[in-house]
Amino acid sequence: MSIDRKDCETRDRNDPIAFARERFLLPDAVIYLDGNSLGALPKATIERLKHAVDDEWGKGLIRSWNQADWISLPRKLGARIAALLGAKPDEIVAADSTSVNLFKLLSAMVSHVSKVSPSRRVVLSEAGNFPTDLYIAQGILKAYGDRFELKLVDATEIEAALGPDVAVALLTQVDYRTGRLHDMAHVNKVAQRNGIPIIWDLSHSAGAVPIDLAGSGAQLAVGCGYKYLNGGPGAPAFLYVEGSLQSQLVSPLTGWFGHAAPFDFINEYEPAASIDRFQCGTPSVLAMQALDCGLQTFQGVAMADVRAKSLALSDLFWQLMENHCPDFGFSCVSPRNRSIRGSQLSFAHEQAYAVMQALIERGVIGDFRQPNLLRFGFTPLYTRYVDVWDAVMVLRDVMEQSAWQSTRFQQRNKVT
Amino acid sequence: MSIDRKDCETRDRNDPIAFARERFLLPDAVIYLDGNSLGALPKATIERLKHAVDDEWGKGLIRSWNQADWISLPRKLGARIAALLGAKPDEIVAADSTSVNLFKLLSAMVSHVSKVSPSRRVVLSEAGNFPTDLYIAQGILKAYGDRFELKLVDATEIEAALGPDVAVALLTQVDYRTGRLHDMAHVNKVAQRNGIPIIWDLSHSAGAVPIDLAGSGAQLAVGCGYKYLNGGPGAPAFLYVEGSLQSQLVSPLTGWFGHAAPFDFINEYEPAASIDRFQCGTPSVLAMQALDCGLQTFQGVAMADVRAKSLALSDLFWQLMENHCPDFGFSCVSPRNRSIRGSQLSFAHEQAYAVMQALIERGVIGDFRQPNLLRFGFTPLYTRYVDVWDAVMVLRDVMEQSAWQSTRFQQRNKVT
Repeated sequence: MSIDRKDCETRDRNDPIAFARERFLLPDAVIYLDGNSLGALPKATIERLKHAVDDEWGKGLIRSWNQADWISLPRKLGARIAALLGAKPDEIVAADSTSVNLFKLLSAMVSHVSKVSPSRRVVLSEAGNFPTDLYIAQGILKAYGDRFELKLVDATEIEAALGPDVAVALLTQVDYRTGRLHDMAHVNKVAQRNGIPIIWDLSHSAGAVPIDLAGSGAQLAVGCGYKYLNGGPGAPAFLYVEGSLQSQLVSPLTGWFGHAAPFDFINEYEPAASIDRFQCGTPSVLAMQALDCGLQTFQGVAMADVRAKSLALSDLFWQLMENHCPDFGFSCVSPRNRSIRGSQLSFAHEQAYAVMQALIERGVIGDFRQPNLLRFGFTPLYTRYVDVWDAVMVLRDVMEQSAWQSTRFQQRNKVT
Repeated sequence: MSIDRKDCETRDRNDPIAFARERFLLPDAVIYLDGNSLGALPKATIERLKHAVDDEWGKGLIRSWNQADWISLPRKLGARIAALLGAKPDEIVAADSTSVNLFKLLSAMVSHVSKVSPSRRVVLSEAGNFPTDLYIAQGILKAYGDRFELKLVDATEIEAALGPDVAVALLTQVDYRTGRLHDMAHVNKVAQRNGIPIIWDLSHSAGAVPIDLAGSGAQLAVGCGYKYLNGGPGAPAFLYVEGSLQSQLVSPLTGWFGHAAPFDFINEYEPAASIDRFQCGTPSVLAMQALDCGLQTFQGVAMADVRAKSLALSDLFWQLMENHCPDFGFSCVSPRNRSIRGSQLSFAHEQAYAVMQALIERGVIGDFRQPNLLRFGFTPLYTRYVDVWDAVMVLRDVMEQSAWQSTRFQQRNKVT
């Protein structure tokens, strides 16, 4: 099937969520395919931060903790995220970083399981999981000596590995390199049958694919605010604890914002009865305000439309790569099967780093991931079909013309 | 000695750091005596955040991690804080919250001591320490069962309590309620004689009193970015690890930003060789930029001048209280002795909450702390002598006229 730029323009005209692009400021002469790493700037963020700085901080000063309700931001944002992810408003709180939040939940679970289930000694995760997830798990388990083993299996082997020896599983819904998507409801069902709690890392799926935490039986999750949620560089992350579990788990990070009565200033820690117990120190108000604006870019946007467009964009990219770049040594490592595909495509290439640098110089921004991957993320709120067209055309041009092509590369490419 | 407003104006004219006030935006009709809780807004922050949002994030997008050097912010800010606190540039990093940073250092130390010094079972801190410090300690020690005991003694008894049973001490240099100041060099000397590491919480002293971490033999410290350092609400905190200790301590929060090679994305955690090992997740770039501007308000300001003015301001406040408010039932709980006084005064009063509310309504902003304290903080960069005069005059007026005075209060006050 032949597609031209006009077809892409037509698709953009018919896009039911095309209006969302107007909520973002995107630089001229840039095609941004890295919103899976850092979301674009929402227009509303500019005014909001100006207001938060000039008026709330500058004029309100300390009074703004109450008058501007800064104190409620972690829960207010949590409720917004919950609406997006199919959780109850009091099951999510915005706080700290993904790594710190993962530490809270995994520590709490490991501690819990170590007491109630002595025979469960495996903490299960995926080979190729986002490294910080594995690092955090390693750090926690170190304190337990030989008690637990961190076992990494391929994504396709997770289900089979969810056996009676597993204490807790730590899974990332969408793989950061391949974009492979887990069927959360199905995996949860298998895990629950075996009494295994799963902590889901939603960093590469929240805001990108429809998520129904309640409907899919999820108990625990963390996620990132600065990718598809458009919260800005290093935005606060979030964590989810299903309601009935909240009273059973205590965060190891027992800071004052997790206290039942933080402003009573009593000496003894007593965890808040609610999800607030998973807060720790004073949250960054400016970062929270930016995240709030990021979350509001989803207002009035159906996640089903986001998903449909996401798949259409990646299908288009893949097809255009086949049509226009078949002979340059690219090999897609993302799932062809739409039901297990997230919102990105990754292509292996032996000169991946140099190719991505050349693309970025031409204004097409994806990213490079070790050892040999070019990643292209599709953020349906602001990525257009014509962007995909233009990106592939630039890539073709780069491959045909650019000086980065070493003789060695050309020779090897001819052989294969 | 009688003082009038003219005298205060003269002092302001002769103030060698009066120029620093121009670096802040302060609202009209407000006398701000709560910079010990949330520092005022530096003018430079407005432009910096606008640039960071519009240009670095909006236009630079993901490229700004390198092009705008976002990646170096935690260390760049750490070096600035180090210059202020007498540490080497590579001994401090800006990261997370004070609570989280305290967790990192105290966990690391407790874990270390638990292995090398089985006879040391006391974690020593102060009765009345800022609660989050005690909460974090309680959370950490819980995991060790009976192995450690958290022992709290009065500030004046710390020295005597630094005995051979102490594993680690957790001290706050300036008490958040009374403003009492520890002699850090002296306490460090006593502790080192007994082989006891101290973790200093500098939240209420950094930027308020001269600190010489190297010269005073400090090994470990944490501190807050949003008080005297003017980094904005919930600003990133910082932590200090003396150079020779860095390789011996591993943070329990083993996130990717603490990895030796975070962007190699390898599966095994390997802590960075430097202070970077105490970073964890992705830092908030916007919050870091604001903190950077806060730190720069100290440029060209000698901490000796800050200290001299701080003491002169609190002396003045105290004296004016004695001259003009002697009969209203206030009793100062802060040290008269300047050598152990931080940069605040706290007055006990049986109607403290109501009095502070009345003051705030009149534009004099201090704060109330349980159970009965009015706190007034003096931030020499932007507090003037006339502010102190005006504040006490408003307080006198409030006490003489305001409707909050209940009959009960008046009666009881007559008796005492």
